[in-house]
Amino acid sequence: MAKDQKKQPRPRAETPKGFRDYFGADVTERKAMLDRIAEIYHRHGFDPLETSAVETVEALGKFLPDVDRPNAGVFAWQEEAVPGGGSGDWLALRYDLTAPLARVAAQFRNDLPTPYRRYAMGPVWRNEKPGPGRFRQFYQCDADTVGSASVAADAEICAMLADALEAVGIARGDYVVRINSRKVLSGVLDAAAIRPDQADEVLRQIDKFDKVGREGVLALLTTGRKDDSGAVIEGVGLTGAQAAPVLAFLTSKGADNTATLDNLRGAVGGSAIGAEGVDELAQIAAMLSAMGVAEDRAVIDPSVVRGLGYYTGPVFEAELTFEILDEKGRRRQFGSVAGGGRYDGLVERFTGQKVPATGVSIGVDRLLAALRSRGLAGTEAQGPVVVTVMDRDRMADYQAMAADLRAAGIRAEVYLGNPKNFGNQLKYADRRGAPVAVIQGADEAARGVVQVKDLVLGARIAAEASHEEWKAQPAQTEVPRADLVAEVRRILG
Amino acid sequence: MAKDQKKQPRPRAETPKGFRDYFGADVTERKAMLDRIAEIYHRHGFDPLETSAVETVEALGKFLPDVDRPNAGVFAWQEEAVPGGGSGDWLALRYDLTAPLARVAAQFRNDLPTPYRRYAMGPVWRNEKPGPGRFRQFYQCDADTVGSASVAADAEICAMLADALEAVGIARGDYVVRINSRKVLSGVLDAAAIRPDQADEVLRQIDKFDKVGREGVLALLTTGRKDDSGAVIEGVGLTGAQAAPVLAFLTSKGADNTATLDNLRGAVGGSAIGAEGVDELAQIAAMLSAMGVAEDRAVIDPSVVRGLGYYTGPVFEAELTFEILDEKGRRRQFGSVAGGGRYDGLVERFTGQKVPATGVSIGVDRLLAALRSRGLAGTEAQGPVVVTVMDRDRMADYQAMAADLRAAGIRAEVYLGNPKNFGNQLKYADRRGAPVAVIQGADEAARGVVQVKDLVLGARIAAEASHEEWKAQPAQTEVPRADLVAEVRRILG
Repeated sequence: MAKDQKKQPRPRAETPKGFRDYFGADVTERKAMLDRIAEIYHRHGFDPLETSAVETVEALGKFLPDVDRPNAGVFAWQEEAVPGGGSGDWLALRYDLTAPLARVAAQFRNDLPTPYRRYAMGPVWRNEKPGPGRFRQFYQCDADTVGSASVAADAEICAMLADALEAVGIARGDYVVRINSRKVLSGVLDAAAIRPDQADEVLRQIDKFDKVGREGVLALLTTGRKDDSGAVIEGVGLTGAQAAPVLAFLTSKGADNTATLDNLRGAVGGSAIGAEGVDELAQIAAMLSAMGVAEDRAVIDPSVVRGLGYYTGPVFEAELTFEILDEKGRRRQFGSVAGGGRYDGLVERFTGQKVPATGVSIGVDRLLAALRSRGLAGTEAQGPVVVTVMDRDRMADYQAMAADLRAAGIRAEVYLGNPKNFGNQLKYADRRGAPVAVIQGADEAARGVVQVKDLVLGARIAAEASHEEWKAQPAQTEVPRADLVAEVRRILG
Repeated sequence: MAKDQKKQPRPRAETPKGFRDYFGADVTERKAMLDRIAEIYHRHGFDPLETSAVETVEALGKFLPDVDRPNAGVFAWQEEAVPGGGSGDWLALRYDLTAPLARVAAQFRNDLPTPYRRYAMGPVWRNEKPGPGRFRQFYQCDADTVGSASVAADAEICAMLADALEAVGIARGDYVVRINSRKVLSGVLDAAAIRPDQADEVLRQIDKFDKVGREGVLALLTTGRKDDSGAVIEGVGLTGAQAAPVLAFLTSKGADNTATLDNLRGAVGGSAIGAEGVDELAQIAAMLSAMGVAEDRAVIDPSVVRGLGYYTGPVFEAELTFEILDEKGRRRQFGSVAGGGRYDGLVERFTGQKVPATGVSIGVDRLLAALRSRGLAGTEAQGPVVVTVMDRDRMADYQAMAADLRAAGIRAEVYLGNPKNFGNQLKYADRRGAPVAVIQGADEAARGVVQVKDLVLGARIAAEASHEEWKAQPAQTEVPRADLVAEVRRILG
């Protein structure tokens, strides 16, 4: 047996490529952020939904354009077909939280309230090539209203998003929720007499507005342009007269919502769908105002183009407006942390019935990164008080000390490694981020006292103090055992 | 196109067999319970760890005895081997939280503190035949200390478990943590001169002690017995003299820990490993006492046999001692909600080094069921105040009302369905569990008032009141719009 075991190579202790583990503060900081968001969603009447991580490939849908490999992009496997057991179905890990919502909305349509407001927070999986900062399992945080065609649902989501950002600590003025409308764009395309077969191409070029700006999009919509490398990119072939209303739409943001809406009314001309879109944006603006959400928090802004092709009505995006330094040390706006909009056909695949829905997804990792960059995610020093072990026969005494501290609500632990080398115990306390170490040798035990060492102050003294000050060791005090909790409390402040 | 779509059958809106979704209170009640447990673990110096859901099959290990199908029991799939992309590795969903801990402890052994205390809460997946109440995705909640050979670590886990049970609401007296020792059993087997090749069989029979009792195990260890169906079960073939110390061990629980430990000292005779085991239990008993954990909360109890074969030192189990009615209406003890113990070889597979570890796993679903059976899991009425819509042109007014309520910390939402049929709005409020409905028609708006309907009181009146009382409708009051928040607050109490 032993020989056989020797021959087997040891397994590699590694996460699969593209996967990662979260330790300590990684977990608690994200959890604190999501808890605050959940509290806001709850207060708005949204209920939590936690679907299974595994769905049938059939229910998820063939969501990727690659028809030859319908399951590319998901982690999928086939169940064994055994009587009474596996079904032979193809199963897969969910790739987002919207596809499972669609399945739930169809499966439980007779049991769920209509409209159904739900939020969901959890991991999703993508079978994609991993890269720096790109993982194959990551968190999403969604809120959607299913079954309401009213733009009141959209307005509510925008207001809720603004509240959620403030709840996690983003200051008013450091974010803005921008709102646009697919219908207005459709109206503009109508007004510009753009042929239906050109519409998709126009949408694709508009999507580059953020990157190439007004002149760039104008060129792309008409005769084409050269990119930075000198390569020629063909244009859509619109006339300048056709491109003009599209550009007017993209740049129609005025000094306030009223001005923007006036500009949009001009841009859509006589288009009915366009007028409907502008009217919806006007309603949203009025409702946000009624909810006390001023334009510095959520504003009509037709330059928001991401997702315009995907959504069917209002589209929204939350941006953080403060600057950070990018990896090259350049100042740039933090940018988008959430996006969403109105979409149709969520449940239609399953039931044949159109069910209107609108929702938003917060980029959990990006928002957490933003909080960290602003010093807003750090929970206070979370290291435990470490009770050191001078005499291994008196573990019960040390555990009693830790228990006393815990009973007072103080995080505390006894050192459980080999106690022989006391230096290792202090190194351990350091690695644990311990604010305080408690020490009691035989001598102290006999006298009924403990040494309480302020490790934070100790580290500062070690870094700054003179030899004399160092020797004075003000960071360590001796107190009666009965005063242990009080002394630790004093140090922790 | 439309024709083609018609031909495709609609996908089934179903979770895969054996999977389920969690709605509303399912999510929040479990979360509240786990949050309280996490708070206790945190206070004991345990750090959270969230590993990836996906592991390599290699790292998980071939954990099931079925050598022909090494991956049976897990959901596994092979990565495509493509340059720069998939590795060709077999990947699988984790089947518990211990195997990933082993991988993490090996992978990050130079970065983690030693000992490493961690807790983990999250779903695990089992590719097993689903059955009633048996799902293929379920939650686990584990706490382990890796890298400490000291039984102080075991004592700490037992104390922490007791604290955790109380933190979620189980009253003192309604639970007990029972502690046994594999080493003591080994000592008993030594003392009884049981051959090494018989030991596994003896362990298997001991495992039936809960079910068949003292006489049953005696028969199983010696000459065999007939089960209820009359089938003969062969015995291990021990003599009565050999079986006696094993049974003495199983039934050695005395009036208190001191008496139990005395009994155990007798049972292990001159066995060195047995004496070591008894000594460890004595240390644990002393440490629990020092930590203020009395014997009504955690007690040495050699009748705890589950897992004795798997663990290598102390073994513990938390039982809820109150009675519930089972599905047949019989009274029975609720039973086990957590178990654990000390185990070796956690990291050895990866590094060749033995790393001692001890830990506990709480059965999340069972504990939540216990809380529900005691009325301890229900969060208060969580339905939102529903602001109804009498006039769809005044959505902004209704949203302002909901916003005012939320600003006062009250959960509130505007009805977003089709407002034409007012009865449907009240049905919706009922389905949402709404405590209050707010109503404002054109007439009320003109007079600057709102109707506030106490739905809880209304339901009671509808059930109990006479027609006259019903007509008086005290459950609905009219207040000035400015007093809306105060009136809702009054009703909510």
